[in-house]
Amino acid sequence: MAGNSFGQLFRITTFGESHGKAIGVVVDGCPAGLEIDVEFIQNQLSKRRPGQSEITTSRTEADNFDIISGVFEGKSTGAPICLLIANKDQRSKDYEHLKDVFRPSHADFTYEKKYGIRDYKGGGRSSARETAARVAAGAIAMLLLKRVEVSINAYVSQVGTIKIPESAFPIDYSNIENNLVRCPHEDTAAKMEVLIKEAKDDGDTVGGVITCVAENVPIGLGEPVFDKLHAELAKASMSINAAKGFEIGSGFASAAMFGSMHNDPFINEDNKITTESNFSGGIQGGISNGEPIVFNVAFKPVSTIQQQQKTVNQQGEEVEIKAQGRHDPCVVPRAVPIVESMAALVLADYYLRQKSDKI
Amino acid sequence: MAGNSFGQLFRITTFGESHGKAIGVVVDGCPAGLEIDVEFIQNQLSKRRPGQSEITTSRTEADNFDIISGVFEGKSTGAPICLLIANKDQRSKDYEHLKDVFRPSHADFTYEKKYGIRDYKGGGRSSARETAARVAAGAIAMLLLKRVEVSINAYVSQVGTIKIPESAFPIDYSNIENNLVRCPHEDTAAKMEVLIKEAKDDGDTVGGVITCVAENVPIGLGEPVFDKLHAELAKASMSINAAKGFEIGSGFASAAMFGSMHNDPFINEDNKITTESNFSGGIQGGISNGEPIVFNVAFKPVSTIQQQQKTVNQQGEEVEIKAQGRHDPCVVPRAVPIVESMAALVLADYYLRQKSDKI
Amino acid sequence: MAGNSFGQLFRITTFGESHGKAIGVVVDGCPAGLEIDVEFIQNQLSKRRPGQSEITTSRTEADNFDIISGVFEGKSTGAPICLLIANKDQRSKDYEHLKDVFRPSHADFTYEKKYGIRDYKGGGRSSARETAARVAAGAIAMLLLKRVEVSINAYVSQVGTIKIPESAFPIDYSNIENNLVRCPHEDTAAKMEVLIKEAKDDGDTVGGVITCVAENVPIGLGEPVFDKLHAELAKASMSINAAKGFEIGSGFASAAMFGSMHNDPFINEDNKITTESNFSGGIQGGISNGEPIVFNVAFKPVSTIQQQQKTVNQQGEEVEIKAQGRHDPCVVPRAVPIVESMAALVLADYYLRQKSDKI
Amino acid sequence: MAGNSFGQLFRITTFGESHGKAIGVVVDGCPAGLEIDVEFIQNQLSKRRPGQSEITTSRTEADNFDIISGVFEGKSTGAPICLLIANKDQRSKDYEHLKDVFRPSHADFTYEKKYGIRDYKGGGRSSARETAARVAAGAIAMLLLKRVEVSINAYVSQVGTIKIPESAFPIDYSNIENNLVRCPHEDTAAKMEVLIKEAKDDGDTVGGVITCVAENVPIGLGEPVFDKLHAELAKASMSINAAKGFEIGSGFASAAMFGSMHNDPFINEDNKITTESNFSGGIQGGISNGEPIVFNVAFKPVSTIQQQQKTVNQQGEEVEIKAQGRHDPCVVPRAVPIVESMAALVLADYYLRQKSDKI
Repeated sequence: MAGNSFGQLFRITTFGESHGKAIGVVVDGCPAGLEIDVEFIQNQLSKRRPGQSEITTSRTEADNFDIISGVFEGKSTGAPICLLIANKDQRSKDYEHLKDVFRPSHADFTYEKKYGIRDYKGGGRSSARETAARVAAGAIAMLLLKRVEVSINAYVSQVGTIKIPESAFPIDYSNIENNLVRCPHEDTAAKMEVLIKEAKDDGDTVGGVITCVAENVPIGLGEPVFDKLHAELAKASMSINAAKGFEIGSGFASAAMFGSMHNDPFINEDNKITTESNFSGGIQGGISNGEPIVFNVAFKPVSTIQQQQKTVNQQGEEVEIKAQGRHDPCVVPRAVPIVESMAALVLADYYLRQKSDKI
Repeated sequence: MAGNSFGQLFRITTFGESHGKAIGVVVDGCPAGLEIDVEFIQNQLSKRRPGQSEITTSRTEADNFDIISGVFEGKSTGAPICLLIANKDQRSKDYEHLKDVFRPSHADFTYEKKYGIRDYKGGGRSSARETAARVAAGAIAMLLLKRVEVSINAYVSQVGTIKIPESAFPIDYSNIENNLVRCPHEDTAAKMEVLIKEAKDDGDTVGGVITCVAENVPIGLGEPVFDKLHAELAKASMSINAAKGFEIGSGFASAAMFGSMHNDPFINEDNKITTESNFSGGIQGGISNGEPIVFNVAFKPVSTIQQQQKTVNQQGEEVEIKAQGRHDPCVVPRAVPIVESMAALVLADYYLRQKSDKI
Repeated sequence: MAGNSFGQLFRITTFGESHGKAIGVVVDGCPAGLEIDVEFIQNQLSKRRPGQSEITTSRTEADNFDIISGVFEGKSTGAPICLLIANKDQRSKDYEHLKDVFRPSHADFTYEKKYGIRDYKGGGRSSARETAARVAAGAIAMLLLKRVEVSINAYVSQVGTIKIPESAFPIDYSNIENNLVRCPHEDTAAKMEVLIKEAKDDGDTVGGVITCVAENVPIGLGEPVFDKLHAELAKASMSINAAKGFEIGSGFASAAMFGSMHNDPFINEDNKITTESNFSGGIQGGISNGEPIVFNVAFKPVSTIQQQQKTVNQQGEEVEIKAQGRHDPCVVPRAVPIVESMAALVLADYYLRQKSDKI
Repeated sequence: MAGNSFGQLFRITTFGESHGKAIGVVVDGCPAGLEIDVEFIQNQLSKRRPGQSEITTSRTEADNFDIISGVFEGKSTGAPICLLIANKDQRSKDYEHLKDVFRPSHADFTYEKKYGIRDYKGGGRSSARETAARVAAGAIAMLLLKRVEVSINAYVSQVGTIKIPESAFPIDYSNIENNLVRCPHEDTAAKMEVLIKEAKDDGDTVGGVITCVAENVPIGLGEPVFDKLHAELAKASMSINAAKGFEIGSGFASAAMFGSMHNDPFINEDNKITTESNFSGGIQGGISNGEPIVFNVAFKPVSTIQQQQKTVNQQGEEVEIKAQGRHDPCVVPRAVPIVESMAALVLADYYLRQKSDKI
């Protein structure tokens, strides 16, 4: 109940702090016989790793991982898979002066009040460094999903007020990795990069939106009532550090629409039932209908800024602070593999859950 | 795993179909000794009940409930509390002609494919009638939360493109029940009502947004990493029928903001640590910080419309249908107590979970 | 977490008190398309019902049940199945004098201390009446298991010091229902009946043992480490009122054995791998091996006796009481369907869980 | 659901194989602020470690552990605690000849059938080496329980047919560690040691029983119905490798008793309600009553014997094998800390669960 596990049948538990020995994950429930493609996992981790470009934090971690258990001769055995990622480039002294202070919009205050003790080094457990463990586990989920042809692609669709224009659709996912921002539309990406650099130069940070699309998802994933597929995707997405909003399909825009426009008519296309539009975002009644699952996640600007800020310390005194820790000017480029991973973890879990639907 | 339960320590399981004998809920984990205020529960149910006004469905259900277990001499005993709400005004024959057809943007298609069998009467298990059980359970959660002074208020903030203007804030929650729409700003409510009636006259439906505010939430509710308080609120909200989007605090607007604007400075106000702004929406690092928890839920227009629509039937043939079942032209007025209930269920659960935080 | 649910994928939640309106169960996770054989469920309930013979309690309940949800045209739909069993023959006044007293070896004292409130009528939630709900749910589990040819048979193997002799094996299960005790060996049953009647005449009660055998269980049910199949059977069995001991296969006798005798050699019998002996009781490493699963459950003598007993009351004063409530002189004849049900619930759950073992 | 986790609020997940890099455990839900006494944990691990004496396996592992996460300045922080124990003295070549063979009464056959793949080295995940992780986690649970004065002592009460005589009670727990067998009665211990050595000399193994006593357990731990405290203790105990039976209090002996003898009369002793006898074993209605919790666990003789045995191989051919791996002639001396650990894990979990009992 302490919140460090996710999923029911494909279940992960992460552990580790920003400046501890290592972070890691236990994946329990991965079906036996899956080839564990180490290169693919490393590749996903590298998309998330700090220090990958000039628009990310300068903390440098290779984020190589060790397989501690659960894999035998290259395949999953049904036993829990533990992956460890060592922490190497901690600079704990950067945080000594924050030991006693609650950084604005960080978790310092709430952790202190909740637990009465706080690992202040690099944010401890509340650090987004924990998401490396999610990406490692999410990569294994992706390997499972690939076997049933599911593909998942996330990309940056907004930074500050800059958005991909309607004219850029449909998106060619092969362009996502062509630029530092991970925005598949070249012109937009260029503008985003400029904005992020400006924010960085100002010692500031900026927010953004990531769009994620899962294709070829089998019909029938999702559980009625509380465990609707998009409800779980919402939880998965909102659990990512800095996430502030989630929408599926038409999302908030649907509030302004009429049913006659919004309904997705079923049609028969070459003996396959499909829908003419996809305002539903691939999910109806909480269950996948075979159309692309499309959702957006909004991220706030990173809370650590290189500017003087007022706040209070543990004694309740009002003080001024200026961050020294390294940080990202905009979280969305590195959050792309995290969003993909959370989507994969949900879909892998629901893929296994659906095996008990019928006699 | 079949998705009909919600919560960990304060855990509910709902059951029942739209046209079955009854719907109901089992609340397991309600602490012993809580006075079960029957009138309060009934009052919450009455806010949700069909047939309450001319802008809701004409199905008429009093939604009275029976306490089957778990209450002794007016108080909870620690045993599971089962509440039953009889179904009385079913008109199953309205659905006979839909037995074989997949209504657009409904759950007919996905349930059929998932289970190979489908209770087509009134949508069966996928009907929003299930939410009456949530409201009954949510009312018990509210009774628990009231003991620690938590108050929860939801209201309609948008219908179609009509929104409460900025000038109307701060909201006086005592106005919420003053109109049929449950919008606390009188002028806006009037416009919304007109729009809903227009939609109804057109045989159409319209979407909307509900805003929910929880005040006096104790500091420290929420679990790190996956079970962040807003992540669970997101899941809870998105599990409501017709929900398409969720945002906490600054939400999607945060994507366009800079960190220097968005951060909430801590201040000391009369020896209480509080924040100057509340873009965080009362939650930092997934844990409540004592400020009001504010979130929005977007609802799509109801899928059942009184217009001719094209679709396919179970044989895959393209057909035209026109709904005969009774339905709401806009879901948000009746969804207000549902959103409150889901918020209460999350907060009650996390209130119990937080009891193990420290030695 | 409040302990009223059992199972993971085939999950039941029971509710209700001995003298409340009804007891009931919600079965969540029953695969869709299962024919719900009402007569079979009733038959199982009738084996457990009070008042069935002169060696059981004289409380008379027909234990008819209502299906509230989850069944459509005779089949499960994948939605939660709620079954209700009304309480009809309560005599709450029999318990008025016990309102203030802790009956020896009952749950009165512990419930009072745990919850600070107690439904003293008929034992409230702690009454074995709750097991009717388990039997109803267990019957559904059995219907699911029957589809894969699993058969489960429990019988009384010991009452007091009277045991079925070795010479009576192998057991012919068709004899179980031939006598009131549910012991398949006629001579032994007759002696047991006499002993139970003697105990009854003395206002006393006597303990016993139930043996349960599950045959044709597919190989591979059970999860390693904590959720070993026999560990879950142990929990399931020990959760039955009055259970004091559990053993699988060789059980406590194994403590006195040597490995060279105890090991079950694998042999190839007509191209089927089987074992020469079955000290393992059909489970190795926590996983079913295809041999019969055999386990015993020991039951203490019922705590309610018709004799003067000393105890204390809520004020801590030492007092004498004599029970007036109706009760069984020996629990095992009626516990036979309960043990079968718990076995079925475990096996059905693990049968669904095993679907995710391999890619 | 894959069975590698235990507990609800104090929840552990173990991972690792006998011949992998390491075994480990993640403890999630340990309250913040607990002093993590490293020496105590190591001491418990040393009681379980292989190679500790001439009556245990000759595999030598120091079983030192690393704290990877969740501890800051010597105290728990509320974050998950990961402990790693390296494997050092593997001899995988001893298992090469077993790669293709199903050892009698081992998990080889069932793992192979369940997963279609098997780590045959040292038994892989099915090895009792996994229990080291339980002991490490159980030690943390004990540290938590010590703060509320709970003490847990397990000891060997039977090996083969040799049992501690009635005259030896009450047991002085300080004698447990006085001999290699961990039997607190010197004479009995000496006989047990002789028997174990004889078995060893014969290349054979022998079974035994461990008795566990938990004292000063607060009244009120345990949940009604399915999660009765003794039901969970049964599951916990039966999940230990080689366990075949569990009994609480009077256990199997209760089957032969009458209620008038078996009931535990409540008495008032110096203003404390206690019971005159303790056939209940400290638990009534599934909830602790403040008396000592007493239970027994029966262990079969270890399956690995140094004798020629017949079995079948993966091709189904009947073959003869003789084990070469190192193993224990009797499991109970080393299982003492494992039983204590499982008891501690259950009690710590229920201690946290009980915090939500009342308003």
